Amino acid sequence: MKIGIIGSGQLGYMMINTMRRYPLEFYVIDDNKGPSAFIADRFFDASDYREFVDSCDYVTYEFEHIDQNILKYADEQNKLRPSIKAVELKQDRSLEKKYLKEHGFPIADYEYSETYKDAFEKAKEFGKAVIKSCKGGYDGKNQYFVDINSKYEEHPDVPYVIEKFIDYDYEASIIAVRDVHGKFYHFEPSFNYNKNGILIYNISPVNNTLEMIDMAKRLMESLDYTGVMGIEYYVKDGKTIINEYAPRVHNTGHHTLTGSSISQFEEHILAISGMDAVNPELFVPSGIVNIIGTGIEDKISEILELGNTNIYWYHKDEIRRKRKMGHVNVYGKSYNDVQKKINIILDILYCGKIDEYI
Amino acid sequence: MKIGIIGSGQLGYMMINTMRRYPLEFYVIDDNKGPSAFIADRFFDASDYREFVDSCDYVTYEFEHIDQNILKYADEQNKLRPSIKAVELKQDRSLEKKYLKEHGFPIADYEYSETYKDAFEKAKEFGKAVIKSCKGGYDGKNQYFVDINSKYEEHPDVPYVIEKFIDYDYEASIIAVRDVHGKFYHFEPSFNYNKNGILIYNISPVNNTLEMIDMAKRLMESLDYTGVMGIEYYVKDGKTIINEYAPRVHNTGHHTLTGSSISQFEEHILAISGMDAVNPELFVPSGIVNIIGTGIEDKISEILELGNTNIYWYHKDEIRRKRKMGHVNVYGKSYNDVQKKINIILDILYCGKIDEYI
Repeated sequence: MKIGIIGSGQLGYMMINTMRRYPLEFYVIDDNKGPSAFIADRFFDASDYREFVDSCDYVTYEFEHIDQNILKYADEQNKLRPSIKAVELKQDRSLEKKYLKEHGFPIADYEYSETYKDAFEKAKEFGKAVIKSCKGGYDGKNQYFVDINSKYEEHPDVPYVIEKFIDYDYEASIIAVRDVHGKFYHFEPSFNYNKNGILIYNISPVNNTLEMIDMAKRLMESLDYTGVMGIEYYVKDGKTIINEYAPRVHNTGHHTLTGSSISQFEEHILAISGMDAVNPELFVPSGIVNIIGTGIEDKISEILELGNTNIYWYHKDEIRRKRKMGHVNVYGKSYNDVQKKINIILDILYCGKIDEYI
Repeated sequence: MKIGIIGSGQLGYMMINTMRRYPLEFYVIDDNKGPSAFIADRFFDASDYREFVDSCDYVTYEFEHIDQNILKYADEQNKLRPSIKAVELKQDRSLEKKYLKEHGFPIADYEYSETYKDAFEKAKEFGKAVIKSCKGGYDGKNQYFVDINSKYEEHPDVPYVIEKFIDYDYEASIIAVRDVHGKFYHFEPSFNYNKNGILIYNISPVNNTLEMIDMAKRLMESLDYTGVMGIEYYVKDGKTIINEYAPRVHNTGHHTLTGSSISQFEEHILAISGMDAVNPELFVPSGIVNIIGTGIEDKISEILELGNTNIYWYHKDEIRRKRKMGHVNVYGKSYNDVQKKINIILDILYCGKIDEYI
């Protein structure tokens, strides 16, 4: 069976690496050669999307911001999984928010504007808010924090959503899977620590997750979704709201590579290729530390010596500030045990100066 | 860092797959293209061995029966790990047995012959014996069982060892690692079930392993060994003798891919590339079932549904009788739990007719 992956970044890289042990072939398409282009069974340039889709049994994606032509053609051929709808909603933040609101999911108050000036004024009305361009922008890019002290600055007049700022207690996320038979399973949700809009580390399991699991199930059912989905939540005073969802494997799900009976990458490929998803089991608390803007070669032995650690290097072409170069999986007997190891790894990677890397 | 692997079979395939997540490149050399040739960063034909060795930082092997020129050149360049001695002893069974005996390791009584007729006579003197050609032969090939009822048959006059037949209670094996600093670690030994000289399944941990661990440590130290070694034992009435060792990752060590904190493949590459080996931890009893002479595509969901199972398919060019096509990893709460699942998987794979596949 031939699985097509749109996008050649680290998520596709880990999909292929994890699933190499199945009788599957992996074809990758992108407009430039990211890490997974070099380990795919075949790489296609984006312009050859018809040949790519025609060659594959199923087509999935590891990135939402992709050429519409590929998506549409794969959808027409009835090969695209998860659905085109799930990714179209993600290509415009206002559509995602509207969908979530209309389907009764709790989200932060928000407004919509088509000019930056109007967006800025609406942000001021919220008191504290984040202005985000509707299209493009991830890892904190094209996002502007505004509060009562903010001075107006020029930004392009494009569609924006203005989200009321939630001073949340913490961010959490869930990785869930739904297969073609409608079977739903979920991994244990994780606590996520972000800085400057970039995930630094996370740990699973986190407490009080019944609402999260329920929302994930309802959202995936409402979209008649097939595959893995990542959903980010804000938790404030025990209340959970959805921040956003990702219609694919997710950066906060890499902890499933260790400590779990099956990883998010395996679940996704099983589900999108029509096989049964599997009920994942978490054996031990586990988490990750992202390796951002730095190398790892001279630090491997120090990290492995801690015990219960695994290195994941993404083989990107060059190390750049803010760029996710890899991650370290960590697991241990307790949540605190994992947290302690994560703190040590952060020290090994960033020597207390993480701001210089992100 | 560039790691060269001599041989392109499934052991190299799993080495590369497991270690793709490290900042390493993998070059492979062989006289024909096995599975790992297609996932290596570069493949060399056996005749280009000088270029191969010159391009690599370290060279290791996944198969003992290899071209001496490659080994010798890699050794001259001081890049070969484990040592050339460890593999030379394996290229002739009589040298291996002599070495083990001279170094005080318990082995079965044996004799040496240069003609088959003489070998047959010595076998008769033992009562029950196995005649094995000194060179070549694995998975039960070129091996002849002789007892008092056996009639003489013609076989080539080549050097043979004649091993007194041990009617052992069971076979066990250990996977151990030693790094360049001389640090020794071992995985939990496994019980191995063989049929017609081929491993059908195994389960770790097995009981009463102190002697096995001690022998592994002494053998690796005596060879000043760097890397992973697999050692097979026969256990009879509580006594343990060495059957043979393999100077590489080993078919009975695939259980380390699940249930353990680190796999034999990772330990081997860490050790041979000069990094520190890691103390492996076994979380849960785990084992494997070999997939021999059959496909798996239509059986994946049934196997995964059992829970705590993982599929490993080797991507060989064609399915043939007796050929190891892949394996299934299994783990569970207890040894019996794993044994039960293994029995079910054997039924799924072979429908009670394993003799037709091996």
